[in-house]
Amino acid sequence: MSKLTDVPKRILIGRALRSDRLGETLLPKRIALPVFASDPLSSVAYAPGEVLLVLSVAGVSAYHFSPWIALAVVVLMFTVVASYRQNVHAYPSGGGDYEVANTNLGPKAGLTVASALLVDYVLTVAVSISSGIENLGSAVPFVVEHKVLCAVAVIVLLTLMNLRGVKESGKLFAIPTYVFVAGVFIMIAWGAYRGFVLDDTMKAPTADFEIKAEHEGLAGFAMVFLLLRAFSSGCAALTGVEAISNGVPAFRKPKSKNAASTLALMGGLAVTMFCGIIGLAMATNVHMAENPAKDLLDNGAALGGDYVQNPVISQVAEAVFGNGSFLFIVLAAATALVLFLAANTAYNGFPLLGSILAQDRYLPRQLHTRGDRLAFSNGIVLLAGAAALLVWIYGADSTRLIQLYIVGVFVSFTLSQIGMVRHWNRHLATERDPGKRRHMIRSRAINTFGAFFTGLVLIVVLVTKFTHGAWVALLGMVIFYATMSAIRRHYDRVAGEIAAADGPSDDSVRPSRVHSIVLVSKIHKPTLRALAFAKLMRTDTLEALSVNVDAAETKALRDEWERRNISVPLKVLDSPYREVTRPVIDYVKSLRRESPRDAVSVIIPEYVVGHWYEHLLHNQSALRLKGRLLFTPGVMVTSVPYQLESSEAAKKRARRRQEWNAPGAVRRGPVEKRAKEPSKSGKKG
Amino acid sequence: MSKLTDVPKRILIGRALRSDRLGETLLPKRIALPVFASDPLSSVAYAPGEVLLVLSVAGVSAYHFSPWIALAVVVLMFTVVASYRQNVHAYPSGGGDYEVANTNLGPKAGLTVASALLVDYVLTVAVSISSGIENLGSAVPFVVEHKVLCAVAVIVLLTLMNLRGVKESGKLFAIPTYVFVAGVFIMIAWGAYRGFVLDDTMKAPTADFEIKAEHEGLAGFAMVFLLLRAFSSGCAALTGVEAISNGVPAFRKPKSKNAASTLALMGGLAVTMFCGIIGLAMATNVHMAENPAKDLLDNGAALGGDYVQNPVISQVAEAVFGNGSFLFIVLAAATALVLFLAANTAYNGFPLLGSILAQDRYLPRQLHTRGDRLAFSNGIVLLAGAAALLVWIYGADSTRLIQLYIVGVFVSFTLSQIGMVRHWNRHLATERDPGKRRHMIRSRAINTFGAFFTGLVLIVVLVTKFTHGAWVALLGMVIFYATMSAIRRHYDRVAGEIAAADGPSDDSVRPSRVHSIVLVSKIHKPTLRALAFAKLMRTDTLEALSVNVDAAETKALRDEWERRNISVPLKVLDSPYREVTRPVIDYVKSLRRESPRDAVSVIIPEYVVGHWYEHLLHNQSALRLKGRLLFTPGVMVTSVPYQLESSEAAKKRARRRQEWNAPGAVRRGPVEKRAKEPSKSGKKG
Repeated sequence: MSKLTDVPKRILIGRALRSDRLGETLLPKRIALPVFASDPLSSVAYAPGEVLLVLSVAGVSAYHFSPWIALAVVVLMFTVVASYRQNVHAYPSGGGDYEVANTNLGPKAGLTVASALLVDYVLTVAVSISSGIENLGSAVPFVVEHKVLCAVAVIVLLTLMNLRGVKESGKLFAIPTYVFVAGVFIMIAWGAYRGFVLDDTMKAPTADFEIKAEHEGLAGFAMVFLLLRAFSSGCAALTGVEAISNGVPAFRKPKSKNAASTLALMGGLAVTMFCGIIGLAMATNVHMAENPAKDLLDNGAALGGDYVQNPVISQVAEAVFGNGSFLFIVLAAATALVLFLAANTAYNGFPLLGSILAQDRYLPRQLHTRGDRLAFSNGIVLLAGAAALLVWIYGADSTRLIQLYIVGVFVSFTLSQIGMVRHWNRHLATERDPGKRRHMIRSRAINTFGAFFTGLVLIVVLVTKFTHGAWVALLGMVIFYATMSAIRRHYDRVAGEIAAADGPSDDSVRPSRVHSIVLVSKIHKPTLRALAFAKLMRTDTLEALSVNVDAAETKALRDEWERRNISVPLKVLDSPYREVTRPVIDYVKSLRRESPRDAVSVIIPEYVVGHWYEHLLHNQSALRLKGRLLFTPGVMVTSVPYQLESSEAAKKRARRRQEWNAPGAVRRGPVEKRAKEPSKSGKKG
Repeated sequence: MSKLTDVPKRILIGRALRSDRLGETLLPKRIALPVFASDPLSSVAYAPGEVLLVLSVAGVSAYHFSPWIALAVVVLMFTVVASYRQNVHAYPSGGGDYEVANTNLGPKAGLTVASALLVDYVLTVAVSISSGIENLGSAVPFVVEHKVLCAVAVIVLLTLMNLRGVKESGKLFAIPTYVFVAGVFIMIAWGAYRGFVLDDTMKAPTADFEIKAEHEGLAGFAMVFLLLRAFSSGCAALTGVEAISNGVPAFRKPKSKNAASTLALMGGLAVTMFCGIIGLAMATNVHMAENPAKDLLDNGAALGGDYVQNPVISQVAEAVFGNGSFLFIVLAAATALVLFLAANTAYNGFPLLGSILAQDRYLPRQLHTRGDRLAFSNGIVLLAGAAALLVWIYGADSTRLIQLYIVGVFVSFTLSQIGMVRHWNRHLATERDPGKRRHMIRSRAINTFGAFFTGLVLIVVLVTKFTHGAWVALLGMVIFYATMSAIRRHYDRVAGEIAAADGPSDDSVRPSRVHSIVLVSKIHKPTLRALAFAKLMRTDTLEALSVNVDAAETKALRDEWERRNISVPLKVLDSPYREVTRPVIDYVKSLRRESPRDAVSVIIPEYVVGHWYEHLLHNQSALRLKGRLLFTPGVMVTSVPYQLESSEAAKKRARRRQEWNAPGAVRRGPVEKRAKEPSKSGKKG
């Protein structure tokens, strides 16, 4: 027996994180970078293209604004990175945006951030997979021809992987991410070498096309609006930057410092790649249009609906490496893979955030249990369903999906930064050490600037993108917000209802005696076991109860009862309608009426079977009776199980389920830190 | 309190059938006829047309065989009616085909009949509704233009009606059925008067069309085969004849005699109507073709795909009464209504047969409970789903659906009649009274002829229709048969496993002591109640158990435990992975290991809530723990419910559910008779 339970436990210890073995599973920076940065780094695969797309509305001449827009994005990136470095230092326990907003700005701000993040996770999946499909499609045409199908297939694949519980290993992330980063850097370097040193002319496949401007000669306010819209689209490069601030506990010591340097490294890489790709796009004359079918002209003729506009990164790679060359294929594959990994991070983040929200009673409490397979499964399926729906509605078109994407990100950026300002204010009110104060004032300044800048971007995004799709994201946020507040209200109401009054004794009508009833339909092993157990309980009275639905059967039961000389008295209820539930309920109620201070204990023999279809064949009336009895005050219901042979199968299945590995374990870091956070334990009643 | 439970009871007594009030609810013949005969009578709406359709394959000249085929159908009808009159006398308790075959030919024959009947019920719905739609369509063109949609809509409507529990009142059936019968008779009489007395020429709308024979000049074997196929199609008129034999207990006394006369009356009416319609069709020159689009010619040109071939009964009515005349419309409406009522009888029969099969453990046992809403609902939904699927696949084309229809009917006719022969043989072996013997020998002769004739028809149907669709019905039967035998095998296996050994005491390892554990997460009213109840049980040991998933919460719990001075010792289990289930299971197992002869009683405080969505928010981990505990031997699990305010809503809902009225109550007749039948009580172990 001890062997049987030890084996899964030992397997478990090998995987799950126990306080005494934590050191080994913590992430070194070189692994933490790919784990946390696959989302923000992968966004350079689509962000540069989006900038050019929007600019093309005003014609190809507007492309010369792109370096300025890139510069604005870079400044924003540095601001955000600098701001989050403050978060990381202030919340070494992993203060995600939700917790920062919740702690410093109150539950409404926290819930707003949470809604924004949930929407964002859905969009991360939808956008990353759509973009991954487009990048893969530049090397494998079949994929682009069946875009929606392939995108949904990838979603299904990721969902199944996560439902089965893949372990998020550092290596899984490290290889494609580093290949991707290296590929992009080689491309930038080789492109620069060919351009500046060899003086080659590199031509993107779209270099010879013309762009028909939708609004020729835009100027003044309209032009500013367009530039702001292009900037908004470029901000897609910033999505996922906040991930590290959630994952500080997963870093090696010194945690905060390591997290902050990783954050800086990530920002540096992202910015370099973003600018490099924009630069190469300019150098190789990439032409992108919002509606390539009609706005891209080849010798004056529109290209038509069959034309597939490849992503900027792939066009640039084609110009630099040559179409179909080894490096081109490797880069396309790595790009797609990194984008799929970025989608996978949402599969980890969504249920994790769900469990934190459940802890604060905004979501069903069962999501709270960490590593509970069912809880995670629900979250994963919800995420996958919503993402697949979006992919299907938007035809797996990353450009259209990105319109929805940025709102949520900047809502949480802004609120998180405002929260940080409050955080520093609060600490400054009590801190006396001038050195620390100086530090705090500096941090506060950075966060204030971050809050201001990200808030500005949020307004820009809302204004320029609202009608383009941002309203969909806002609607999603409102739905999440409303649902979660309703759940919280429900829990609060119930908590008030069941709160124990003070004083040592509470239940005013304390029952004085117990009347036990064993339900009997036939004499078989489960019944005999239930009778034996009931006798052991030594309650005040004990009787067996049967319902007469078939006279012959009842007579047989009575006869056998006598023949076996069973010492418990057998009572038979008549049932003119051949029901079982109602006579039992009525009888129990009549007992309670006779002596209201007595409790009634109903003991039900139950079979335990192994397969779901066997459940359909057994115990249904017992289950329904149990359900009804629970509504009757003063009654307790006892199941005495009898394990059929087939129940072994179910037992094994349950054990397997328990050995399941929740996704996102690596990035979540050790367990015990979170439990001690004041923001949580303080809220429990 | 007594008022509250009495009201639903009184309502119930008014509806359900209690032995002391049975007389009033029994059916007089004038009501029994429409209740039981809507199915067989309504089939004259499609059977005559099917005969003409098949004959048309050999050209219009083959139509002169139709009186001979009608004659064969009449002879068959009389045979079947005469045979079933014997059934009715032999099984006054309502021996349906299943029970006759089961009792006399053994369980395999019984199960075959049951499978055939289940398939038949599905087809009754599909065929009757499709035909009803076609008849309605002859007056309302919209309906025919959206045939499948309308047919499915009617199925959905009937399903919802039956799920809500309409009471099958005699009047509901009586009015349309009598209007239909009267309408057909008026039509026949008026047509005969116009034809013979007034010497009017009556022309059906298709009278001037020509039929392009698919096989001109068929002769010899091919012609015989075609005639047999036409006869098979005509046999559709016999479907539903057996219904009365199921419903003998619903008749007024003398039950068997009244049932037998009703059967004879029904046979007479059906035959007259069938022949009358065939006669009128010949007189008014109705032309029907299997493929009207290409085989019906108007002035030598095919009519094409848009042409709608109206049913014979409607064409005849148009010829006799005039198109759009009041009587024409009334007859079309009554025909459609009777056909829908015929479909409704399947909604009553299917779950009823299901409950009988469940009694014999061929179907999940919970279907057994008579009047159990859930059981009936499952049957109704299954029936509706299968019928809707068939309607959709076959485009609501009654002609194509009828190809599937007759097989099941004749399988059960034949086996039932063979069973009756056995029945008489058995009784003749012991009966000594010469008068009774004479009677029995006469009955046996009738049933023998019936068995022979219906068996012959079954072979004819199988041979002539197998490739036309009968294989689908056979496949359905095989699926039902296999499923039901598998269920029976499962029940038998479990019954063997749990059978109590003989002798007064059985459980060899009888537990000697009980160790009680109350699960505690927080101190609130449900916990306090569970503790109070547990103390009352006076088991050998009692402790409270909590799992430490959050150190702060656990400390708060310990403190409050002390402060309240609760006399039960509190044990806290550590949970390094923050699970709840596993530590509790492990602890219980360790208790069992220490003292294997002790039983463990786990007491769980539970909230009872009122809405399904509240269930999602509560008790999930308790439920899962309960599920796991049931697999652990030697454990009993007690729920101590705490009713939240919202649970009142659920209580009311449960009560409403119990007041629900199962469909088919009228035709089933009183309850207590069936219970006494030897075929059932003999089979229970």
